[in-house]
Amino acid sequence: MTLYLHLAQLLGERIEQGLYRPGDRLPSVRALSAEHGVSLSTVQQAYRVLEDSGLAAPRPKSGFFATAGATLPALPAVSRATQRPVDISQWDQVVEMVREGPSKHTVALGCGMPDITSPTLKPLLRSLARLSRRLDMPGLYYDTLPGTPALREQIARLLVNSGCRLGADDILITAGCHEALSCSVRALCQPGDIVAVDSPSFFGSMQTLQGLGMKALEIPTDPLTGISLPALELALEQWPVKVIQLNPNCNNPFGYIMPEANKRALLSLAQRYDVAIIEDDVYGDLAYEYPRARTIKSFDTDGRVLLCSSFSKTLAPGLRMGWVAPGRYQEQVAHMKYIGSGCTATQPQLAIADFIAGGHYEPHVRRMRGQYQQSRDEMTAWVRRYFPAGTRVSRPRGGFMLWLELPERFDSVALNQALKGQGVQIAVGSIFSASGKYRHCLRMNFAARPTAQIEDAVRKVGQTAAQLLAAG
Amino acid sequence: MTLYLHLAQLLGERIEQGLYRPGDRLPSVRALSAEHGVSLSTVQQAYRVLEDSGLAAPRPKSGFFATAGATLPALPAVSRATQRPVDISQWDQVVEMVREGPSKHTVALGCGMPDITSPTLKPLLRSLARLSRRLDMPGLYYDTLPGTPALREQIARLLVNSGCRLGADDILITAGCHEALSCSVRALCQPGDIVAVDSPSFFGSMQTLQGLGMKALEIPTDPLTGISLPALELALEQWPVKVIQLNPNCNNPFGYIMPEANKRALLSLAQRYDVAIIEDDVYGDLAYEYPRARTIKSFDTDGRVLLCSSFSKTLAPGLRMGWVAPGRYQEQVAHMKYIGSGCTATQPQLAIADFIAGGHYEPHVRRMRGQYQQSRDEMTAWVRRYFPAGTRVSRPRGGFMLWLELPERFDSVALNQALKGQGVQIAVGSIFSASGKYRHCLRMNFAARPTAQIEDAVRKVGQTAAQLLAAG
Ligand SMILES: Cc1ncc(COP(=O)(O)O)c(C=O)c1O
Ligand SMILES: Cc1ncc(COP(=O)(O)O)c(C=O)c1O
Repeated sequence: MTLYLHLAQLLGERIEQGLYRPGDRLPSVRALSAEHGVSLSTVQQAYRVLEDSGLAAPRPKSGFFATAGATLPALPAVSRATQRPVDISQWDQVVEMVREGPSKHTVALGCGMPDITSPTLKPLLRSLARLSRRLDMPGLYYDTLPGTPALREQIARLLVNSGCRLGADDILITAGCHEALSCSVRALCQPGDIVAVDSPSFFGSMQTLQGLGMKALEIPTDPLTGISLPALELALEQWPVKVIQLNPNCNNPFGYIMPEANKRALLSLAQRYDVAIIEDDVYGDLAYEYPRARTIKSFDTDGRVLLCSSFSKTLAPGLRMGWVAPGRYQEQVAHMKYIGSGCTATQPQLAIADFIAGGHYEPHVRRMRGQYQQSRDEMTAWVRRYFPAGTRVSRPRGGFMLWLELPERFDSVALNQALKGQGVQIAVGSIFSASGKYRHCLRMNFAARPTAQIEDAVRKVGQTAAQLLAAG
Repeated sequence: MTLYLHLAQLLGERIEQGLYRPGDRLPSVRALSAEHGVSLSTVQQAYRVLEDSGLAAPRPKSGFFATAGATLPALPAVSRATQRPVDISQWDQVVEMVREGPSKHTVALGCGMPDITSPTLKPLLRSLARLSRRLDMPGLYYDTLPGTPALREQIARLLVNSGCRLGADDILITAGCHEALSCSVRALCQPGDIVAVDSPSFFGSMQTLQGLGMKALEIPTDPLTGISLPALELALEQWPVKVIQLNPNCNNPFGYIMPEANKRALLSLAQRYDVAIIEDDVYGDLAYEYPRARTIKSFDTDGRVLLCSSFSKTLAPGLRMGWVAPGRYQEQVAHMKYIGSGCTATQPQLAIADFIAGGHYEPHVRRMRGQYQQSRDEMTAWVRRYFPAGTRVSRPRGGFMLWLELPERFDSVALNQALKGQGVQIAVGSIFSASGKYRHCLRMNFAARPTAQIEDAVRKVGQTAAQLLAAG
């Protein structure tokens, strides 16, 4: 993409996503030129594109103003910085959620489940059944430590979509992305080490750091572009950071895709300060745009990126099938995998390898991408209808999670409590921070096809939130 | 059991198992009385029982002599003590084994596979297939952290056979016994902590200690009765031991069942020195005797025993289905489980719960017990036929592993090397020790039904061993 088109896209997204309201003045040509290191005429070209698409209009002597975009709610704020590495809390909140799971009669808006009812998933179930009938019973044997070659080959093939050129030998199979992340952290860090993380951050990887005795250094993160590179650089200067851990594609919970330029810049930062990167790409294949965004791993030249992912969000999480491409840390990660759980289960590996080799993965993921994008719009509309005015809403570009920000004094833990009798559950914001920030935020899952029952659940959440705000 | 019968059984086993050859003088009445803390007349009664069963005969003025038992090869020696906690080595040897796995054309005598070809396992495969056809697709959902209640209830029922009265809530499901052990160690220890272990010991749990930074204190272990309690007590007095980790029932690799009295004594030692016990019972249900031996856990009154097990040896290891009953450490172990891999795979849990609830577990295990006992005798006979004279052989009372001890100067690593072209592989003894002891020993799997091909493989191993000994 040419420079001016790239810039136009970036600005356009910001307008569409409500960062600028109609009538808001847009950054000056000079300011953008300085910020992005491009010529004045490149910025002018970009603005012409925005004019053509009706997103910006010039006013004589005053520059450019936003003309559309107000149809979308405002975005959550850029997350605030912590000043120092902290011990991670919030395990109590997390364990409450994962110990019981929602009851059958609850609309579990807080959960991490994809939609598994699509007919495009059927061939996978058929493979599983077929494997159980095979006379040589391949699924019952211990696998080797790296995992079944057939599956590793298929994963290597899929990784081409995110720009990675890896072979089967570069990949280790794990019990979900969770184990991939856990093995990576254990391979790289000792207790007490500092890990820089995007913030908000998936609570599972956060608790993994906690349980292993690492400290988290939460870096301010933009709801559209991801981790702040200036803030990260400052942190790297100030602290002996061992690893940067982040979720740059279809981020959980923000939903952004980190711009390619930022990915490259992040990687050179990591090189400059000689730290490793743990890149969680678990939602990457669910980007609504095609082709999907590249991984940081795809730019990696010296093996410092450990790419972690799984089939939990694209296929089904109950299978517990993930992988890690650990770069130069392959030996250490394999070691940690062995001492954590030994080899991975055999049968689901064979079934997924069948599924991909049979050409079923791409059509399935394509269908889910379309469905999730539609559900995002439906869910966003419900939030605008039922939530208190001023609720800020993320604008995900992939995956199936929506992040809401309410006024500071709002308490999502109290909200979840109040929802208990009503058959609805959300994910409280505080678990997405090492230090319990984001208690005024919450995350909702929109994977399931929109139904009246789900709309009703969202209505209950919104109304209960409004009541709590009114009472507080 | 009365004291004298217990003593008679103990002595009888030692004679049968070749610790005393025909004509060997047996311990004096006075010595046995002192050793076991029983009266002289109790020992005399015990000797009368042995006389009656033709195992011992009195000689005037000289005491009792062994009369039978010479039909079995001599047992391996009691393992030697280390003087101090050590860092664990041998990962290189282990990873070589688990990375590749044996090729299709190799008779893998070194592997840990049970026989999975028994028709009594069929209902399990049918359950797996049936679950894949269910319209509600229960196997695809995330499970809760502790695991599926249906399976935990069935495990609690099975545990009654080993004397445990536990409920479903006392049990956490894990990805194999491996993960159960790993979570237990991580819940109890910090890097640098000392763990007392039986020796030889399963290489997987040893490497887990290594990878987590713990030190192993190897305790001398008797091939018939297990870990030496006097040696253990000495160790507890001398070192700040955090945990005792052992495999008392159908031990891998020795095959012994620790006597009940020793289990009780071990538990009170642990109480006295306030250390936890990690009890690996993965082969316990494969004891040839019925009812099966009790676990140490079954005597536990204050929740200090963490019982770890799995269906890997009784059903099939490729399923990766294990569990831990962590006693008072439940919270910590659940935490470690979460940060290691999150929840466990759903479908195989449901399938195994079906299998047990359908009454298929007991008949399957009964059949395997019988088969393994026969294979043990066959394998022992082959060893006597094909191995160098003087090879010492374990006398397993359960499971499917035989442990061989050759002269000190023998090198099992060189043996495995020499076997590479011959389509046979054994487990080298050195990986069963933290410090690479037992290099002159090896372990062979006799799970598969005896065939001419396996006999041929054992012959090759024995002959190659003889050649190496002759050459060395
Ligand atoms: C960002 C992120 N990483 C990792 C995981 C864990 O994935 P898995 O279920 O494959 O272990 C999740 C699941 O919620 C996630 O959202
Ligand atoms: C004594 C012992 N404990 C644990 C294990 C590991 O069992 P699993 O395959 O269930 O992880 C083994 C397997 O070889 C074993 O022999």
